[in-house]
Amino acid sequence: MNSLSSPLLTDHYQLTMLESYLQQGMQETAVFELFFRKLPPTRNFLVAAGLEQALEFLENLHFSAGELAWLRARFGPALVNYLEQFRFTGDVHAMPEGTLFFPDEPILRITAPLPQAQFVESRLINLLHFETLIASKAARSVLVAPGKLLVDFGMRRAHGAEAALLAARASYLAGFSGTSTVLAAAIYGMPSFGTVAHSYIQAHTDETAAFEHLVRCHPENSTLLIDTYDTEAAAIKVVTLARKLAQDGIEVSGVRLDSGDLGMHARCVRRILDEGRLEKTRIFASGNLNENRVQELISSGAPIDGFGVGTALDVSSDAPALDCAYKLQEYAGKARRKRSEGKATWPGRKQVYRKYDPDGRAVRDVVALEKDDPHEGEPLIVPMMRNGRRIDGINGNRKLEAIRRQTVANYACLPEPLRSLETACAYPVEISPSLQALAKKVDDECGPITSTRNLRV
Amino acid sequence: MNSLSSPLLTDHYQLTMLESYLQQGMQETAVFELFFRKLPPTRNFLVAAGLEQALEFLENLHFSAGELAWLRARFGPALVNYLEQFRFTGDVHAMPEGTLFFPDEPILRITAPLPQAQFVESRLINLLHFETLIASKAARSVLVAPGKLLVDFGMRRAHGAEAALLAARASYLAGFSGTSTVLAAAIYGMPSFGTVAHSYIQAHTDETAAFEHLVRCHPENSTLLIDTYDTEAAAIKVVTLARKLAQDGIEVSGVRLDSGDLGMHARCVRRILDEGRLEKTRIFASGNLNENRVQELISSGAPIDGFGVGTALDVSSDAPALDCAYKLQEYAGKARRKRSEGKATWPGRKQVYRKYDPDGRAVRDVVALEKDDPHEGEPLIVPMMRNGRRIDGINGNRKLEAIRRQTVANYACLPEPLRSLETACAYPVEISPSLQALAKKVDDECGPITSTRNLRV
Repeated sequence: MNSLSSPLLTDHYQLTMLESYLQQGMQETAVFELFFRKLPPTRNFLVAAGLEQALEFLENLHFSAGELAWLRARFGPALVNYLEQFRFTGDVHAMPEGTLFFPDEPILRITAPLPQAQFVESRLINLLHFETLIASKAARSVLVAPGKLLVDFGMRRAHGAEAALLAARASYLAGFSGTSTVLAAAIYGMPSFGTVAHSYIQAHTDETAAFEHLVRCHPENSTLLIDTYDTEAAAIKVVTLARKLAQDGIEVSGVRLDSGDLGMHARCVRRILDEGRLEKTRIFASGNLNENRVQELISSGAPIDGFGVGTALDVSSDAPALDCAYKLQEYAGKARRKRSEGKATWPGRKQVYRKYDPDGRAVRDVVALEKDDPHEGEPLIVPMMRNGRRIDGINGNRKLEAIRRQTVANYACLPEPLRSLETACAYPVEISPSLQALAKKVDDECGPITSTRNLRV
Repeated sequence: MNSLSSPLLTDHYQLTMLESYLQQGMQETAVFELFFRKLPPTRNFLVAAGLEQALEFLENLHFSAGELAWLRARFGPALVNYLEQFRFTGDVHAMPEGTLFFPDEPILRITAPLPQAQFVESRLINLLHFETLIASKAARSVLVAPGKLLVDFGMRRAHGAEAALLAARASYLAGFSGTSTVLAAAIYGMPSFGTVAHSYIQAHTDETAAFEHLVRCHPENSTLLIDTYDTEAAAIKVVTLARKLAQDGIEVSGVRLDSGDLGMHARCVRRILDEGRLEKTRIFASGNLNENRVQELISSGAPIDGFGVGTALDVSSDAPALDCAYKLQEYAGKARRKRSEGKATWPGRKQVYRKYDPDGRAVRDVVALEKDDPHEGEPLIVPMMRNGRRIDGINGNRKLEAIRRQTVANYACLPEPLRSLETACAYPVEISPSLQALAKKVDDECGPITSTRNLRV
């Protein structure tokens, strides 16, 4: 069983429900939508991401002989026989990756026979939640560091292998320059970057020798890690070494700072490098960085050319999860609504319209019904898959570059306060009168909700 | 390329360093240790986990033809030729999984030729950090909910597929009862649990019909989700339904609450069930739970028999990453030490001794040199792999059950304040005089560190 593509990567209750749906013959068309309930205080918007992996999952969904055998020992024959031929044959509508969105706006809609639409819930959320989480975190660094090299350094503390890969992809999609994760470069065709570890310096008995070995081994591009023992002393060694290397036509392209007061060290090191005629040698900083530290360093004028952002990015440290849900909005032609306390949903198939001012800045969104509920503005949800096959046939990696350009262009359409790291007033998202009327209609059909609340002890 | 086992799942700088090590002929024995620098305020101890996956990674490490071809287009032939035969042939010493440990204590030591010991860094941290993170988070729920069913519900918001799987494993190892993730049950042989989603109830036009269909489909064990519309009204429907089902000899095994004031609803529902002669029907609660909420519910006397803990567990929401490092401690027979500001390390090969009082409670640990530095107490680090092969040949899944029992037994040896959710005084970890002397000796050989600090601008 391949851990990344196995359909058993799902919640147990999906199988419990499928068994019951099959027994009841409940296979009519269901419509589910995936949306986010609210923003963490440190997000003014979210960046839709993960659709590529979600579509790949839907296209390839099937049970292998080994998986069926495992299930047969645990579930009834009706379910297992049904799963033998199981494929996703439904439709997908979604916001394209890189779309900026807000609470209550569906970013994905699944229209398929109930057992299919139900079953795909767990992995769809797993993929779309995580990439959206990371793209939205990465966007903050991108917005505060225009023109700087921004590299995802987070693999080691990402939550497992897939998190490392998808974090590299999602941060690149959001405007990062690349990643340190080699496999992400191999899979997604994105740039990878690397310097050396402290162990490289420590394994040499002499720091200058370590620097020289590295530059001679990678004369075209090498970044020297200079904080293992004494940052400024190492910068002076770099200047001396650079004179020697210049005789062989080799330049030192960069140095990396990874500890201590990065702004202070950057100033010292810049002065040492400049006085040593290494004006072109760039300074790269890393070490517990996040978007707030990056902004502080840049606004204090620290002469840093690039930043490695690791753990804080790959685990979205200030908000490691978002409140999202995948809910049934229609079954067998009838709108449905969950009414649990604090978790009620808007029923029916929906579209989101975004209205712009004459300068191209977004001013408000309207969440409306897909049909017979027209509104001004750009409709954000578009068809992506029909009858289980993608509508768009573009190669994933070429598309990633295009998505990245579009994401960065989308930032420019945000109202200015939303582009800041500070918490801004919520962007206006309206629920259309028709949608509100439908919700009321569904409620009226279900009867009042408060009948037994006074039973509370 | 398989995303979970590809050796390209590493940091770019590992390849940069390997290329240079090979060029310089630096292939002597290196010793690296993995340790955690400090605890988050909401952890009093950590639970070692992930060694099984780490050893599996080391045993299977090799480059496929496709991976070598990808590398050949990007790196020099000396590196790629070397990687063709690349295997891990070194030794591993480690704390067994389930060992409780503290800052500055190495939990894993790698002894291998420098290029091997260096290369494995990124994935070893990625695996051991994450499982330790989750096991340590899960331990808190286990300690506050003795005798309760605790189920990992976090797959959908775990950070990708591997995070979901390893979180299920790590929380089980720490004492959870099981997971909702089917693939984790299939891979690790652990129990999986499931109820139904709100969509299951919504897809039916009648809530009682939904309940009845579920119970008749799974008569041996079904948990009815009762909060979709009105929790107490649903509980009354369950009582009525149960009378009908009793005629066919079927019992309703449980109900699930997933929203609102869980303690209040549990009391109401318990009363309704008891009055309806359903004393044996268990109440299971879920919905944004964490160890603090679980403790509050239990200490308030809420009649809840089991808890589904999801997002907070799988992303370790209060501390989504730990400060850990994998550092060179010895190369070519000589102790090494990183001296970066705030990140200095203890050099050499180390052992950790734990001393217990007569009641079997741990009283203090000593971090000492492995050789010629004996101390009282239990040595926590043991040999795990020799020349690239495991010493221990036990089947991984049978081992998981044994590890789980040992972990729970280990909690009983903790000083009482450390078992609380409150931040306790730090457990005493001493650095042995011999180790301190070695650190000083390494420093003296490297020369003073402050020479150029006054260059700061």
